[in-house]
Amino acid sequence: MALLYKADPVRGERWRALFAEQAPDIPWRAWPDIGDPREIRYLAAWQAPDNLLELLPNLQVLFALSAGVDQLDLGRLPEALPVVRLLDPGITRGMCEYASFAVLGLHRDMLRYRQQQAERRWQAHPLLPAHQRRVGIMGLGLQARQILATLQPYGFALSGWARSRHLIPDVDCFAGLEQLPAFLGQCDILLCVLPLTEQTQGILDRELFRHLPRGAALVNMGRGGHLVEQDLLDALASGQLSAAVLDVLQQEPAAPDHPFWQHPQIMLTPHIAAMTQPESAFAVLLDNIRRHQRGEPMLGQIDRQQGY
Amino acid sequence: MALLYKADPVRGERWRALFAEQAPDIPWRAWPDIGDPREIRYLAAWQAPDNLLELLPNLQVLFALSAGVDQLDLGRLPEALPVVRLLDPGITRGMCEYASFAVLGLHRDMLRYRQQQAERRWQAHPLLPAHQRRVGIMGLGLQARQILATLQPYGFALSGWARSRHLIPDVDCFAGLEQLPAFLGQCDILLCVLPLTEQTQGILDRELFRHLPRGAALVNMGRGGHLVEQDLLDALASGQLSAAVLDVLQQEPAAPDHPFWQHPQIMLTPHIAAMTQPESAFAVLLDNIRRHQRGEPMLGQIDRQQGY
Repeated sequence: MALLYKADPVRGERWRALFAEQAPDIPWRAWPDIGDPREIRYLAAWQAPDNLLELLPNLQVLFALSAGVDQLDLGRLPEALPVVRLLDPGITRGMCEYASFAVLGLHRDMLRYRQQQAERRWQAHPLLPAHQRRVGIMGLGLQARQILATLQPYGFALSGWARSRHLIPDVDCFAGLEQLPAFLGQCDILLCVLPLTEQTQGILDRELFRHLPRGAALVNMGRGGHLVEQDLLDALASGQLSAAVLDVLQQEPAAPDHPFWQHPQIMLTPHIAAMTQPESAFAVLLDNIRRHQRGEPMLGQIDRQQGY
Repeated sequence: MALLYKADPVRGERWRALFAEQAPDIPWRAWPDIGDPREIRYLAAWQAPDNLLELLPNLQVLFALSAGVDQLDLGRLPEALPVVRLLDPGITRGMCEYASFAVLGLHRDMLRYRQQQAERRWQAHPLLPAHQRRVGIMGLGLQARQILATLQPYGFALSGWARSRHLIPDVDCFAGLEQLPAFLGQCDILLCVLPLTEQTQGILDRELFRHLPRGAALVNMGRGGHLVEQDLLDALASGQLSAAVLDVLQQEPAAPDHPFWQHPQIMLTPHIAAMTQPESAFAVLLDNIRRHQRGEPMLGQIDRQQGY
């Protein structure tokens, strides 16, 4: 029995050290040095190799090293193979830091001040109290709920939307497509942390922007596939949206001629909102391996029907 | 008896409306239409006129419309005149928002990503967990303590320095000039919210920067007079400091040829961290007027010896 790691080699060395020290009973292999493929029971990977079961005939679990699994083509994976996403508390903390930075920055007009600095212009703009700033989040999973808890002390007026009904103290929760327009109509700042599925692909489009209050701002910390990029450019040009903070793009890295790079109303970061950190993720991964060894349910197992 | 307002005329109209509605017994005058100067008992001002007592012979209290009073030349004011600063909760909230934005931005390398965006470069950098990021604040007054409470949930390693000894839960407190080097030696991000006095003028200088860990970052939300601007440029050039977020300057507005405008390692905002908002400040000012009328101590009265 062995675990095969197939992701960033630098962080791989930190994973290897953690396993050697804290789980020496689980032999560790790093792609492409897989040794005897019949020994591999667990694959910890960002992306899965093609022909998975031909390559690793005794594979029992695929552990995605990420909170989302849209980078995996679930339809091509063996149907009976459990796929488990990584609920790393370090990822959640990173998302909370980024969301706070982005929301506070938009709340306090920081893209405008960035532009004024570039233009050597000293001009203050009126300041809205946080309780008059309505911040809405799409997606109400674990990460979204932590982000809401992080934003709460600032006094923002918070709301959330998800496919199913949620109850969160002091957060106005909307559910289902029929309540989406009502939700959007009261979002001055809209954050997307949805999982990327067939249903949410391209959801941040012209039609959705139309329902936001004029001059609203967007934060996309989900996946690039959520956003129709030309529709964002159009909404910024028309004034329907005033600003966007984007950590993800349809195609990453962005091409040098991508129109977002030098757009004064867009802050673009290279998919850094959160990164899986071996130090915080190891305990979560090991716990799931132990659960599997004991025949218990693992945490974060994907519902193949729902896609997340 | 009347109150004379001498500050921004636009916000003055909001002040006037609040007094008319909630304190109609206090006649309101706005500079320069002061009416009979002998009637003026209270002056609410950003800056005081020269020859104050000649102009307003029956003046009883000077209410500064700001948290700091360094813009007033205390030595030229009548010695017996009480000077009261404005402890507006809206100012404190603004300071907390700005401090969080600045600290999270520096923690997450956002000046570097801003520069990369300008250069069309997509490159992620390693992410340090917040508990490994040491954030220190100079000044431990009301605002500083609120800022520390706002930063605490993110998990930063927090410390503070002030002239006198403080005890704040989960904050490592340093006191006096003799402990300043030890405090600085453990600050990855240093925030200044000190009052500007003779003792703190130019305190953010070459000598102070020398005690910080190499590559530390600076946030100045105090006054421009705290910072020796050339020393900051030198420290950034040498690598002793890596970045700075500045809301205040020696001379405001900054001249068009000021070297901070287009410095890639400096984020400059036009003194907007906090603004006195009549809506949140009115209750505080009125409470102090009522206290004075009843002969009770006012909140925020300046110690003329200490200068704050």
